[in-house]
Amino acid sequence: MDYRFSDRVLALKPSVIREILKNSSDPDVIPFSAGNPAPEAFPAREIAQISQAILHEHPIAALQYSITEGHPPLRQTVSAYMRAHHQIGRENDDILITSGAQQVMQLACKVLCNENDVVICETPSCIGSLNTFRSSKARLRGVAVEEDGMDMQALEQALKEEPNARLIYTIPNFQNPTGVTMSLAKRQKMYRLAKQYNVMILEDNPYGDLRISGSPVPAVKSFDEDGIVIYAGSFSKVISPGLRVGFSIAPKPVTQKMVVCKQADDVHTNILAQMICNAFINDYDYSGHLEHLRTVYRRRVQLTTDLINRYLAPYGITYHKAEGGLFLWCTLPKQADMQEFCRRSAEKKVCVVPGNAFLVDESAPCQSFRLNFSTPTLEQIEKGVAILAETAAQMLR
Amino acid sequence: MDYRFSDRVLALKPSVIREILKNSSDPDVIPFSAGNPAPEAFPAREIAQISQAILHEHPIAALQYSITEGHPPLRQTVSAYMRAHHQIGRENDDILITSGAQQVMQLACKVLCNENDVVICETPSCIGSLNTFRSSKARLRGVAVEEDGMDMQALEQALKEEPNARLIYTIPNFQNPTGVTMSLAKRQKMYRLAKQYNVMILEDNPYGDLRISGSPVPAVKSFDEDGIVIYAGSFSKVISPGLRVGFSIAPKPVTQKMVVCKQADDVHTNILAQMICNAFINDYDYSGHLEHLRTVYRRRVQLTTDLINRYLAPYGITYHKAEGGLFLWCTLPKQADMQEFCRRSAEKKVCVVPGNAFLVDESAPCQSFRLNFSTPTLEQIEKGVAILAETAAQMLR
Repeated sequence: MDYRFSDRVLALKPSVIREILKNSSDPDVIPFSAGNPAPEAFPAREIAQISQAILHEHPIAALQYSITEGHPPLRQTVSAYMRAHHQIGRENDDILITSGAQQVMQLACKVLCNENDVVICETPSCIGSLNTFRSSKARLRGVAVEEDGMDMQALEQALKEEPNARLIYTIPNFQNPTGVTMSLAKRQKMYRLAKQYNVMILEDNPYGDLRISGSPVPAVKSFDEDGIVIYAGSFSKVISPGLRVGFSIAPKPVTQKMVVCKQADDVHTNILAQMICNAFINDYDYSGHLEHLRTVYRRRVQLTTDLINRYLAPYGITYHKAEGGLFLWCTLPKQADMQEFCRRSAEKKVCVVPGNAFLVDESAPCQSFRLNFSTPTLEQIEKGVAILAETAAQMLR
Repeated sequence: MDYRFSDRVLALKPSVIREILKNSSDPDVIPFSAGNPAPEAFPAREIAQISQAILHEHPIAALQYSITEGHPPLRQTVSAYMRAHHQIGRENDDILITSGAQQVMQLACKVLCNENDVVICETPSCIGSLNTFRSSKARLRGVAVEEDGMDMQALEQALKEEPNARLIYTIPNFQNPTGVTMSLAKRQKMYRLAKQYNVMILEDNPYGDLRISGSPVPAVKSFDEDGIVIYAGSFSKVISPGLRVGFSIAPKPVTQKMVVCKQADDVHTNILAQMICNAFINDYDYSGHLEHLRTVYRRRVQLTTDLINRYLAPYGITYHKAEGGLFLWCTLPKQADMQEFCRRSAEKKVCVVPGNAFLVDESAPCQSFRLNFSTPTLEQIEKGVAILAETAAQMLR
C-alpha cells in the first residue's frame, strides 16, 4: 500500500536520545546519554508495600475505570502540597493528573495552538517537549539561554514579531539540557511580558526538588495572580518514571479543555500508579526521601565535576555548574568538531548527546554536548570520563 | 486573561458518558450508562500476587523509564497470542503497546489524517473514538449500521465521495453502542473496498473475547495480506481498564510513525501495568479467565434481556440481541421522545445514554438508548429495569 502520512508527522523524527537508548541496552555502553533516575533513587521497597496494601484493600478501585481529572485523593494531596511548599495554586486554578508531565506539554499545545501558531521555547531545550509541539504542527521560535536563564531582550523581540505566539515554554530550574536556573528577576520579567502580550507561560519543573546547592527560586506559577501560567509537575524524577504520573496546575478554563482532550487521548492515567504516588507522599517520609535524592545526586555531581576538572578541562572542555537536575552541559573549544567528538566516543561505547539535538534549529552550530550523571554507576562515570578524555586527547591537541 | 483556544478543541464537548459517570458516583444511581467491567470480572487476587512478585524481583525494571514501543516480553506475548488465536500479524506488521486502546485511535488519526481529512465511521459509534478523531480536526463521515454491520453500499458511496478519506473506523464485534457483529461477507467486502480506494481500516476490537453466544467471525486484520489494517486491542475489558494497557498491530511503516508520536505524547505506557498483563497471560490460566468472564456476562445478559422482555417489551421497546460485549441497544417506539425518556429515568436515578450521543451528527433523529449490563449489580439491574418500565408507563401509553 501507498502509505500517505499526515504533514504533522512527516517532519517529526524519533528522539535522538530514545534512539540512542534503544541501542544502548548493551550493558557495556556507558549511558551518559540517558536521563534515568539513579537506581538508588527509587523507593522500591515502599512502593512494593504500598501496592500490596492497595491491591488487598481496594483492588476494584485500583483496577476499574475512573475519571479523567485524576484520582481525587491524589489531586487533593498535590493541591495541598504545592500550596504549602511552593505557593502554587489559586482559587481559579485546577489540577489534572497526566500520564507523565510530557502529556501536559502535549495537552497545553493541543488546546492553545492551531497549526502554525507559535510556541516560544528556550533553545536548547528538552527534545521531548520540542517534539510534542512539532507533532501538533506548532511552529517553534527559539530564545537563547544565558547563564541566568532566557535572554529577555530576545524574548520581547520574539513576542513583538510573533503575533501568533500562544505559549512561552520554559524549564526554569536546572534546565534540560543546560542545567541553567532562571533568576528571580528574569522570572518576574518573563511573567510581565507574557501578561503584556497576552501569551500563556508553560512552566515545566521536573527537577525542582532535586536542588543540590544554592537557594530555591520561587516558581513562576507562584506569582500567577492573573491566570496566565500552566505549571507542569512530575513524579518521574522523585518517585518513578515507569509509573508515568505527572500533573498540571492551570487556570480552570484551560484545565477544562485539557481534560476534554485527555478524555479523547487516553481516557485517564493508570489508577494504581496514582494511588501509589498518593500513598507514598502521605504515608511515608516524603521530605526525607527528597533529601535522600539530593544526597545521591550531590555525590554524583561532585564526582563527575571532579573528574571533568581533572581529565577534560585540560583540553579546554568547560561545563555549566548546575545547582541541581540530572545533567551537565559541556562545551568543547571553538575549533573542535562536536559531532565527531560524540561519534568517536560512542564508538568506544560512551554515549553523550550532541547538543544540536536540543536546538529549535538542529542545523545551527553547537559546541556542546549533554552529559547525564544519574544513569551510569559511579564506576561507569569514572571509566566514561576517562574514555571521553581519550577522545579529547585524539581530537583536541 | 482572554483565553483563546485552538479551533480543534472549541467544537469538542466532554464525553456525555464520562460526564454522567462523574455525577453518578452517588451509590443510589443505577449506572446503566457506564461501560465498566463487572467487579467479579477482575482477576484482583492474581494481580496482587503478580505485582508483589514483580516489585520484589524486578523493582527497578518496573519503575524505570523504558522504550516507547512497549515492554518487550509483553510485545512478544501479544504477538504470539494474536497469531495463534486470531491469525493476526504478518511479517510486515509490528506491535505497539499503548496507554489503553483509545490511544491507538488517537495515534492512527494523528499519523494518517491532516486537518479536515475524513474518517469514515459507523454511526452510531463509540463516543470516545469519535471525539478522538474530532480532536485531531478530522472530519467524520457516518455510515449506517445494519443488523449485520456497516451498510456496504453507503460505505462505497462514502469512499467515492470523499477523496480525502484516510481511515475506515469499525468495531466489528459487538459494536459499541449497537452490539452488532459484522458478518464475514461484509468484512471481506469492506477489506476489498478499502484496498480498492487506498484507505486504511482501523479495526477496534475491545470486546472480541467477550462472546457469549454464536460463532466467532474472523477479524478483518486476519485477512490483511496487503498491509491496510490497523488493529486495536485492549486489556481493559479482559484484565483491567484502570491499568490502561492496549496495543496496536499495524504495518511497520505506520507503527514507526505511531511510535514517534507516542514518544511525543506520553513517552511510554506504565511499565508495571505492562508487566502485570504479561505475567497474567503467561503464568495464569488466561483462557480459563476468559471463559469465566463469558459466564459472568452471559448470566447478566440473560437476566437483563429477560427483564426487558417482561417489563419493557409491552411498551414497544425493542433491543438488538447482541452475541457479546457489554451493551444492549434499546429502541423506543416511533412516536416516543427518547431524550425525555432518558431524562425522566435519570431523575429517578436510573442512567442510560441517549443514543444520539453516539451519532456522527448528534442532532440527527434517534429513538434508541444504550443500556450497559456489566456495571450495575444484579439487584440494580432488576430495580433499574423496573424503573425504566415506570417511565415507559408514564410516557408510552
